[in-house]
Amino acid sequence: MAVNKTNTGKFFEDFGVGQVIQHATPRTITAGDVALYTSLYGSRFAVQSSAEFAKSIAYPDAPIDDLLVFHVVFGKTVPDISINAVANLGYAECRFLKPVYVGDTLSASSEVIGLKENSNGKTGVVYVRSTGFNQRGEPVLAYVRWVMVRKQDGASPAPDVVVPELSDRVDPAELGVGLSSLDVARYDYGLSGSAHRFFDYEVGEKIDHVDAMTLEDAEHQIATRLYQKTAKVHFNNFDQSKGRFGARLVYGGVVISLARALSFNGLANAFHVAAINGGQHVGPMFAGGTVFAWTEVLETIELSARGLGALRLRTIATRDLPCLEFPDRDENGAYKEGVILDLDYWVVMPK
Amino acid sequence: MAVNKTNTGKFFEDFGVGQVIQHATPRTITAGDVALYTSLYGSRFAVQSSAEFAKSIAYPDAPIDDLLVFHVVFGKTVPDISINAVANLGYAECRFLKPVYVGDTLSASSEVIGLKENSNGKTGVVYVRSTGFNQRGEPVLAYVRWVMVRKQDGASPAPDVVVPELSDRVDPAELGVGLSSLDVARYDYGLSGSAHRFFDYEVGEKIDHVDAMTLEDAEHQIATRLYQKTAKVHFNNFDQSKGRFGARLVYGGVVISLARALSFNGLANAFHVAAINGGQHVGPMFAGGTVFAWTEVLETIELSARGLGALRLRTIATRDLPCLEFPDRDENGAYKEGVILDLDYWVVMPK
Amino acid sequence: MAVNKTNTGKFFEDFGVGQVIQHATPRTITAGDVALYTSLYGSRFAVQSSAEFAKSIAYPDAPIDDLLVFHVVFGKTVPDISINAVANLGYAECRFLKPVYVGDTLSASSEVIGLKENSNGKTGVVYVRSTGFNQRGEPVLAYVRWVMVRKQDGASPAPDVVVPELSDRVDPAELGVGLSSLDVARYDYGLSGSAHRFFDYEVGEKIDHVDAMTLEDAEHQIATRLYQKTAKVHFNNFDQSKGRFGARLVYGGVVISLARALSFNGLANAFHVAAINGGQHVGPMFAGGTVFAWTEVLETIELSARGLGALRLRTIATRDLPCLEFPDRDENGAYKEGVILDLDYWVVMPK
Repeated sequence: MAVNKTNTGKFFEDFGVGQVIQHATPRTITAGDVALYTSLYGSRFAVQSSAEFAKSIAYPDAPIDDLLVFHVVFGKTVPDISINAVANLGYAECRFLKPVYVGDTLSASSEVIGLKENSNGKTGVVYVRSTGFNQRGEPVLAYVRWVMVRKQDGASPAPDVVVPELSDRVDPAELGVGLSSLDVARYDYGLSGSAHRFFDYEVGEKIDHVDAMTLEDAEHQIATRLYQKTAKVHFNNFDQSKGRFGARLVYGGVVISLARALSFNGLANAFHVAAINGGQHVGPMFAGGTVFAWTEVLETIELSARGLGALRLRTIATRDLPCLEFPDRDENGAYKEGVILDLDYWVVMPK
Repeated sequence: MAVNKTNTGKFFEDFGVGQVIQHATPRTITAGDVALYTSLYGSRFAVQSSAEFAKSIAYPDAPIDDLLVFHVVFGKTVPDISINAVANLGYAECRFLKPVYVGDTLSASSEVIGLKENSNGKTGVVYVRSTGFNQRGEPVLAYVRWVMVRKQDGASPAPDVVVPELSDRVDPAELGVGLSSLDVARYDYGLSGSAHRFFDYEVGEKIDHVDAMTLEDAEHQIATRLYQKTAKVHFNNFDQSKGRFGARLVYGGVVISLARALSFNGLANAFHVAAINGGQHVGPMFAGGTVFAWTEVLETIELSARGLGALRLRTIATRDLPCLEFPDRDENGAYKEGVILDLDYWVVMPK
Repeated sequence: MAVNKTNTGKFFEDFGVGQVIQHATPRTITAGDVALYTSLYGSRFAVQSSAEFAKSIAYPDAPIDDLLVFHVVFGKTVPDISINAVANLGYAECRFLKPVYVGDTLSASSEVIGLKENSNGKTGVVYVRSTGFNQRGEPVLAYVRWVMVRKQDGASPAPDVVVPELSDRVDPAELGVGLSSLDVARYDYGLSGSAHRFFDYEVGEKIDHVDAMTLEDAEHQIATRLYQKTAKVHFNNFDQSKGRFGARLVYGGVVISLARALSFNGLANAFHVAAINGGQHVGPMFAGGTVFAWTEVLETIELSARGLGALRLRTIATRDLPCLEFPDRDENGAYKEGVILDLDYWVVMPK
């Protein structure tokens, strides 16, 4: 009888600390991917939109949107890491290491850096550090993710517990790697859409991004397939309509990209996402919902790279909940109904 | 306290005659934008579809669809001109001045050419001439638009009334600028889809374009974001569902592009939109509606450019109303229920 | 009075055996088309996804997905061949003759190779061999299709009956034309997503592809317009909602592409569709339905091209019917309710 040919994914006992997993389907990023990304989220950051603008600050070409790079790399890891996941628990230490341009080919691998079986003996937590590479083998993105994965055989022995130490936030000294050659002297604040730059932002400042986007099933499906992420919860309404939510679940990365695109109105000069410190998908997102967003400035740091500063931001996205009053957690730490994303990240801006 | 960082747009009293406004987000047009445009409207004009066909008539490459250029430029003007608009009143003197190609970067600016406060003291009409430029600073498109904008402070004094003189139609002598180097001797009527050329069309002739397209929310949203036009009426169903129409309003430019794509069936050799004399969005368009179109030939003019003629056309688009009987205005000037667009424009065709 | 300018298509009596029809709208294939294809189906075959991977096995660049080439060529033939068709009866002898790359321009022509009037005197069957060409005039794809077409004038005489002899399957000796320069020695099974290659597959083996995709109206419309196929049954819901099905009918090619993309899970190394032997659209597909697929291996043949073998596959796609139990025809030849596609084709894989 023929061997099973389909991917059944890894179970908890298939992971071992130190194991390195090469992920499938390398992907050449093209002008087509960029156009689709723009048309799916409506992003308007000048550096990514205009080759001329990018060149004016000494990029060789318009760089690919950082989050598009993130989604493409993330999508590759799913069949090997999280296809049997019960839950995505968190991510940390996500750093964008090198700009990616049209024509670059992205591939990805992950190293298992931690394992901890749950006391129920049925599941365990797997920690991986995933890295995206360009065609020259240079890392362009690295992040840690941890997921709860089912055991296939409950009787298999528990591995030694290894829980990695993870930073709450990416060290500002690590930010802006690969931006050292930029020269923002010719950065044009008329073309970029806002006069507000690094020194105009204050710690504690809150910005309602005003605009909002209603999401359709076709849109999140097209976006998620663009990243070649094909997990059934996003696509199979035959199953999902009978499930817990009664609907296809939107890939969390779509919400992150929508929130980032909305944040243009208030953060137009935050041209680069340098790092993601962590994030929580507080609630699920479904088609028909309308995404709003607001942002709080957590820290401001001048970078060593010429003319640049970094803002540590916390962006909250909501579903069907306007953000004029900055919906947040209450005194008990419970999020206001409607909050779906709480993202902690660093952006780079001209000073 | 931090300064507000989001764009609140200009109010009537913020405009002054002679003021020039540089608009944000320059945009490099790519093969991805072209593919999306094709997939959203189904346009089949050979010159825009095939680099080989375009080269056969001495274009250096397939030019970008004129209406894609229009939408990209128009989208840039919205945050500065019409974010506080009560109504879009009209446009005129729209001329396509130079072909745009993949790799060109478009930017836009507008000059205020007229102002007239309304007698209610609460709103006023702003006239702007908007120009799209390529990366060499050459104008590729220019048009006049006038919108009714709110005053922020009712007590602010009324400006001097300046109302520009606008042509009813673009002078045929101005058409086909930038087409002088074309050579249609090798234009292939088998590949273009029709044997009908300039001399086959008669003034007064009416053409039902037969085909029709039903529009989905995902489609008009993807199209409108492609133009980086993010006005909330098109995207925010949380608000719109409670509003006057109970639905997201489709950007009028989407209807224009649909009508143009439908017009291929009957006008397959009208390979270039040279000018838009004026247009009216007679009724609103919503997802779920089906767009039909018909065209009347208003004028025919031989151009000085070798082998070319121009047809002045009036294309009517309808919602859920077939165009076999050419639905139009009645004797009182009232449009038949279902008409949503009445567009007066010049196209260029081989003689 | 002006001559009718719109395409009314050919009727049965307009076809003659030996007639060659040049189809309209040549099309330059771009990186934008590739990105849209990926985003509409979620295909993950490494050769088409990565220029680097393609080059590693001696392609000059990532080839265009074979089915995208098929749809673009097929779309061109519709206005001339099947606009007055009552039914699409079948296709055969479809061979992919040469890889197509970004920048190539596709055009198409068809030769009428058979005619047979039906006994009712109102319709007849037209057989055409359609060929797609690149800009150098080299055939890249050829296939036979037969359709039932209405007569315009019932009194017109019946033509001589000519029914071409068609192969049940493309001869394996004809497969892999244009692959002779490939070198799969460096084919990377880690990057491709599966270790299973030609010799791992057995005749009679059945593979449930596990994954599934729910299709939206916006998605099949965007896909079908990408191919510039604008037949009203796919787009005009004003008419379709009142018709037999009460809904827009999904272009059968969309189902084929979805099934092919789903088949990645189980056939990840089947990097090239070399031929389509025949196929049946067993049932209609509508938006809202979820497509599943399974495949049976019919034949295995080693190719003369170095390191390659061909699998003859039969892929069944279903609507709202999981394929764990391989839904098929019953003993009377009737398909199980829910089956929508039965496709017989050859794929190429490394040995």
